[in-house]
Order: sequence, then structure tokens, then C-alpha cells
Amino acid sequence: MSNVIINRAETSKIESVDFENLTFGNTFTDHMLVCDFRNGQWEQPVIQPYAPFLIDPSAKIFHYGQAIFEGMKAYKDEHDDVWLFRPDQNYDRFNKSAVRLAMPEIPEEVFIDGLKQLIQIEKEWVKKGNGNSLYIRPFMIAIGSGVIAAPSTQYRFMIILSPAKSYYSGEVKVIIAEHFSRAANGGIGAAKAAGNYSAQFYPTKLANEAGFQQIIWTDDATHTKLEEAGTMNVFFRINDTLYTAPTSERILDGVTRKSLIELAARENIKVEERSVLVAELVEAAENGTLKEIFGAGTAAVVNPIVGFSFQDKYHELPKIENSFALELKSKLTGIQRKELEDTFGWTVKV
Amino acid sequence: MSNVIINRAETSKIESVDFENLTFGNTFTDHMLVCDFRNGQWEQPVIQPYAPFLIDPSAKIFHYGQAIFEGMKAYKDEHDDVWLFRPDQNYDRFNKSAVRLAMPEIPEEVFIDGLKQLIQIEKEWVKKGNGNSLYIRPFMIAIGSGVIAAPSTQYRFMIILSPAKSYYSGEVKVIIAEHFSRAANGGIGAAKAAGNYSAQFYPTKLANEAGFQQIIWTDDATHTKLEEAGTMNVFFRINDTLYTAPTSERILDGVTRKSLIELAARENIKVEERSVLVAELVEAAENGTLKEIFGAGTAAVVNPIVGFSFQDKYHELPKIENSFALELKSKLTGIQRKELEDTFGWTVKV
Ligand SMILES: Cc1ncc(COP(=O)(O)O)c(C=O)c1O
Ligand SMILES: Cc1ncc(COP(=O)(O)O)c(C=O)c1O
Repeated sequence: MSNVIINRAETSKIESVDFENLTFGNTFTDHMLVCDFRNGQWEQPVIQPYAPFLIDPSAKIFHYGQAIFEGMKAYKDEHDDVWLFRPDQNYDRFNKSAVRLAMPEIPEEVFIDGLKQLIQIEKEWVKKGNGNSLYIRPFMIAIGSGVIAAPSTQYRFMIILSPAKSYYSGEVKVIIAEHFSRAANGGIGAAKAAGNYSAQFYPTKLANEAGFQQIIWTDDATHTKLEEAGTMNVFFRINDTLYTAPTSERILDGVTRKSLIELAARENIKVEERSVLVAELVEAAENGTLKEIFGAGTAAVVNPIVGFSFQDKYHELPKIENSFALELKSKLTGIQRKELEDTFGWTVKV
Repeated sequence: MSNVIINRAETSKIESVDFENLTFGNTFTDHMLVCDFRNGQWEQPVIQPYAPFLIDPSAKIFHYGQAIFEGMKAYKDEHDDVWLFRPDQNYDRFNKSAVRLAMPEIPEEVFIDGLKQLIQIEKEWVKKGNGNSLYIRPFMIAIGSGVIAAPSTQYRFMIILSPAKSYYSGEVKVIIAEHFSRAANGGIGAAKAAGNYSAQFYPTKLANEAGFQQIIWTDDATHTKLEEAGTMNVFFRINDTLYTAPTSERILDGVTRKSLIELAARENIKVEERSVLVAELVEAAENGTLKEIFGAGTAAVVNPIVGFSFQDKYHELPKIENSFALELKSKLTGIQRKELEDTFGWTVKV
């Protein structure tokens, strides 16, 4: 790859941003990275001012949904160095998503090196301490035109950056999916494809109206196995063992999930990757062996769940002392923020 | 709804179009209809020159795939009148798709009346005879910005028009899906959602590489029931009965499919709406009772299939005299083009 072309913004909007009162995903930094794929190859990436762009009404993204993305975070340590967390994992997953959606794979120089250059330019936007981070959104869309259902020949890869406060979602109550599903066997559930998310909005709206913040999805064929939540993998603690569904074609291979599994092993917390049945969860809730449920994902890192509903019955989780969720969260965020030693080699300096 | 605002193009590009050599879905007329949804309501629709538009990189369509569409056709009869085919069906389906994707429903005045006004303006683009038609693509995308996985609050509805020649796809050989799937139980398969199409591109690419033009999808849980093809419902003729899968959450409720069912009844061709098992199809192919397979969809109307492959075995269909596919196709296109009497009241004058 030739070097990244850099067109700097004339002014920065950073002074107008209230970093204490950010809503997640709504504020963007001054620049973005753009790299187009045409004539069978990736063109030179450009870092340019963040701005709307022109696109044809017949662009394939609008009609056939070829779009994938990633979500990752950068943190600034007390020496003002900026760190990424396992960017290689996001890079790999992005290209797996690309293959599944019949989109071209992106070179590492564009994704990883391009990202580092972009963050260098936006360093001021990464704030220290206090749960602050820079949320990173690489994505790729089909920009070729034509309303015929076939893969595009032109694509646009972009990276946009959004400063974030630590994610607090309030008490999270979940409902177990009994009818709707997010993914099919042999479908695109394991890809971070845009289409997977829109599929969840209507059922999630119904769940919200019923007083639940999230859905825990079950396998679509039988609705008996617990899978994952809308943007998080899920862990269940029964007695002192953590269970989480194995990854599959239906489940996103979460970076937080896999990191928590390794971290738990280091901390001598027993983890089993196997399908947990809904019936098993209900039984554990009823006999008091269900101690915790928590989500795992980049946005909230670890998100404790206070209770779940199944077949119109709400099961409240006990308040416990030695929460695995909180222990793992503080260890993992400690590593991410360079406050604890990174024995795994997960953090990468920008 | 207040009236449509009309901003006419200064010049027409119609003279530069070679109407004898159109590739499907690549040429667009001079104008498009645009109607935005903001602050909880639909704004005034505008007919304006067809052109690219500006959109934010964080627009929800790019990240969470909220996008739905319709496909329909207009035909010009020998009196130079332009006719739509069952537009009410596309309108209803569009709003069903909208609900499933947590998008706002579009008023009939915008979809139907707006479309008629747009076609009036583009009347010259609808050519008579010879399999000519105007392909109509209404669609809606989420244009609200923000990289948080939740429904957008802003949407854009558009209609674009593309002149088309009769669709000839060559000999169509299909492969029966054994591993991949297009839709989940409780998923969005019955919606005309953009995300459903991108999910099919990779498996279809593999099928193409193996020498097959299309896939016939099976139910994702067991892969034993025949469902539909990528952009067509499918009919199987065993002896003198036509079978087609019942519509469900996984299958698009095709306008061509339902019209063919009514037409077949009128023509005393027996049709059963029930799941056909893959095993049944193979058996019928082997004992010679399988006479025809054909796809049914707006683009090709009826698309005969010459053979299918399952478990690496290719089954060629017999060449027959009294093809139901050809009979139904000529009757249906005759009605659509106003060459045969429309006993059903399906055609609507623009
Ligand atoms: C469907 C889904 N599951 C799980 C996750 C968690 O993955 P990660 O830990 O890589 O953020 C995400 C993304 O955040 C997701 O979108
Ligand atoms: C998945 C799918 N099935 C079937 C059809 C056929 O529907 P219709 O006859 O309404 O065009 C289409 C659309 O063309 C489709 O996209």
C-alpha cells in the first residue's frame, strides 16, 4: 500500500464538544479514513475531514444490504499514550464478515495502520481516566450502483471515531426469545453484518414496551438453547461455574467473550463453553443455583443483568457479594486502560 | 398529504439511452421521488432530478441495515396508456416490511399517488411492446445518524425507475441448499429487507462457481423442505399438479406467486400450497413424475428451470409439450400488458 493521503480539517470542532455529557455514538471526531475498492482493487486510503458524502440512490447498500462493521475502543493511559485492545481480532473478524457477505477483504495496512494514523491525528479526542474511551467504528458498504440482486463491484471502507464515556445502561432486565430470532443456521449471524441488527429492532421494541431492555436470543429452530444478546455475548453463572454458548454460525465470536474466558481461566474461575438450555436456566433460577447473568461486549465491556423473563414469568437474580461479573470487568478494563499488567499481550500502542 | 413538489430536470437524458440494449437495473429515468420522515412524520414528497444525495457516514442504514424495498413493473399498452400490476399488493407488503424492520409505514398517497405522478412525468421512458417495461423500485432507508444499535428516527423513502427489456436469463439450473440458508424462523425472511439479499450472495457465488445460476433455499432447521429462490418463489409440477411452499415468516409473499395461483385456478390447473420435501422432489425426478420447476417473480415473471442438483447429483427435467410455466407466463404477461382481458381487476391505469 502506498501511504495514506492526509487532508486535514481546517478547524477542529473539539472545543465545542462537552466531554462530560456525551451520548454514545453521536459525536464524531474531525477526521475519517476512507478507502474505496474499484476495478478489483483497493485504492489509496485518505484521511479527510469527517463529512457527509454523495452516493447514488441505486447503490447496492440501500437495496441489498451489503454492509459490515466492527466496534473497538482506544484508551489513553496516564502517560498520554493511546492503546488499542486486540485490534488483530477485530481485523480478522472484519475480513470473515467480508467473505460471508461476498465483499472484498481489506488489507491489514488499511485497517490497522490506517486506523493508527487516524488516531494519531485525533489524539486530543482520546480523554484520560474516568471511563473515557474513543469508540472506533470501521465499516464497509457496497457503493456500486444498479438494482439487480448481485454483489457490488465497488465498495467503500471507512473508519469513524466517536469519543465515549463509560457506558452505563441502568438496570438490565432481559427477556428470553420465544418466537423471534436473530440468526438462521447457515445464515449470517456470525458475521458483523448490518442486516443482523435491523432484524432485532422490532422484537427489541416489543421487549422494551414490556419493560425489558434486551432480548436473549435462542436458537431459531427450537428456541430451547440460549445464544447471545443483541450486541453482547452472554455468560451464566450457575453455582461457581460460568457458562457461555459456543460460537457457531449463529453467534458472533465476541472479542470481549473470548478475553473473559481467558481471564477467568487465569483467575481460576471455571468456564464452560456449551449451550445452556432455557429449561436449565429456569431450573437454576428456581433452585437458587443461578447466581449471575452478564453480557460481554465492547460497548459496556461487562453488563450485569438483574433478572430475566421467560413465558411471562420474571426471575430476579440474587444480589451477591463476590460477583464474577464485577471482578472480571475490573480486571479486563484494568488491562485495557493499562492500569493492570497485561499478561496476555492484548494491548497495542498506537 | 399536501401535493407533491415537482422540480423538473432541465434536460432529459432519454436520447442517450439505447433502449434495445438495456441491462437490467442499470439505467434510470430523469426523475426520482423523495420523501423524508422526520420528527415523527412524513414530510412533503418531492419529485426531483435523479441524482446522488449526501448522507452522513454514521447513517443507520450503513451500520444497522434498516432498509426495505419493493419491485414492480409498469407497461404501456397500444393506446399509449401506462398500467401498473397490483400496486396495492406491493404497497401492503412494503408496509409489512416496514413494521418488521421497526420503520415507519408510508402513506398510500406517497407510495401510490406519488408513484403515479412520477410515472406520468416519465411516460416517455415506458416503451410499448416487445417485452418492454418500466421497472419500479420504491425503497426506504434509515438516514438518522449515530452508531448505536437502535432504530433510526429519520428515514428516506424514494422511488427510482429503470426501463427494462424482457428478462432473459438463459438456461437456469438450480442447486438445493444443503448448508446455507436465507431466513430464520422468527426472522425477517418474509420482509423485503435489504439484509436478506446480501446474506445470499456468498452461497450464490459458490453455486455459480459450481455451474448453477440460483439456489433453491430450504428451511434452515432441517434443510428438508423446499422454500423459495433468491428473488423468486418456486413452483414444482408433479404429474399435473403444481405445488408451491406456503408463505411463512421465512418466505416472501410474492405477488407473482399469488397471481399465478389464482390464474391457475381459473385455467383449471390444480395448485396445492404446501411444503414440498426435497426427498419428494428427488423421488419425483427419478420416477419421471416431476414435469417442471419454475420461479415466479416480478423481474422474469415466470422463469423455467431446466434441472436441479442435490447432494452432487444433477437431475435434468424433461422437455415437455404443454408447459404450465409457459402457459401461465403468456396468460399473466398478456394481462399485465393489456393484451388479454383482465378478469381479475389486477391492472391499474396510471
Ligand atoms: C451480536 C453481537 N454479539 C456480541 C458482541 C460482542 O462482541 P465484542 O466483544 O467483540 O464487542 C457484539 C458486538 O459488540 C455483537 O454485535
Ligand atoms: C426473496 C423473494 N422471493 C420472491 C420474490 C417474488 O416476489 P414478486 O412476485 O412479488 O416479485 C421476490 C421478489 O421479486 C423476492 O425477492
